[in-house]
Amino acid sequence: MATTLSDLSVPIFVQMLTSLSGLLDKAAAFAEAKKVDPKVLLDSRLAPDMFALARQVQLATDFAKGPCSRLVGIDPPKYPDVETSISELKERIAKTISFVTGLDKAVIDAAADKDVTITVAGQPMTFKGKAYLAHMALPNFYFHVTMAYAILRENGLDIGKRDYVGKVPA
Amino acid sequence: MATTLSDLSVPIFVQMLTSLSGLLDKAAAFAEAKKVDPKVLLDSRLAPDMFALARQVQLATDFAKGPCSRLVGIDPPKYPDVETSISELKERIAKTISFVTGLDKAVIDAAADKDVTITVAGQPMTFKGKAYLAHMALPNFYFHVTMAYAILRENGLDIGKRDYVGKVPA
Repeated sequence: MATTLSDLSVPIFVQMLTSLSGLLDKAAAFAEAKKVDPKVLLDSRLAPDMFALARQVQLATDFAKGPCSRLVGIDPPKYPDVETSISELKERIAKTISFVTGLDKAVIDAAADKDVTITVAGQPMTFKGKAYLAHMALPNFYFHVTMAYAILRENGLDIGKRDYVGKVPA
Repeated sequence: MATTLSDLSVPIFVQMLTSLSGLLDKAAAFAEAKKVDPKVLLDSRLAPDMFALARQVQLATDFAKGPCSRLVGIDPPKYPDVETSISELKERIAKTISFVTGLDKAVIDAAADKDVTITVAGQPMTFKGKAYLAHMALPNFYFHVTMAYAILRENGLDIGKRDYVGKVPA
């Protein structure tokens, strides 16, 4: 059996978004145990000009639903960036997982050599579907998931690499 | 043209390790401009029980050479973890890039459905090659590259997402 583009997209997004949702559960429990407002964590960032945790989670979902939509050839669903609580962010993650798993795998697979044009720094850039996934979508997706983990870790949460890698699909 | 496992492994490692090497150049320039010992950056970490920058760089290379070796079916080259300077870490990155680009792509491609057994938390776990790459190797690889970026960013380096994503292969 050959490798397909859907093998290397949807299940990765599902794995890591599920982990991210679990990290948010641990953040909620941490806030409760420490008697701090969960907003303190959601507004936390590693540097003044970096995005805070809530935005990192939104961007992680954007880099799942956006790339999958572009591979399939549909407009990405628009989620207004209005989440202000852990439960709302978890809902956004769940919605994203449900969206990407609902896409037709065969259409994703067929996009391997399709041109995908995106705008980078104001300039249109065209990639083959598989290059777009491998070299733009996944690096950006992983960036925001890892940054969310880093912010929580830097805030003192007792989480480890296993919480990040999560459950590996069989 | 179908998707192959080599499409979704070696060029990703090369892209991101090249970025990482560029981040280390910026770290060296930053240390010089601020008149601080580069060791301060290499020893910097986000939390007391997280790895420092130098170790994150070593682990990023390990999660490139290790997975590629396992897919090909050879023992990963052993690099002693002795780097104490930016130039030594850059050398390790260069050696890793040269190693993974020297592997036979056809052998990597053929590993998509080969069993790969690794030890996770003391237990052997067996995956098909493509699942191992997608669900274990890449999440771990991206974790350490992003963490290196996060440590530098938190130290005040003027770097951005473009430094992280780097040069996308044509």
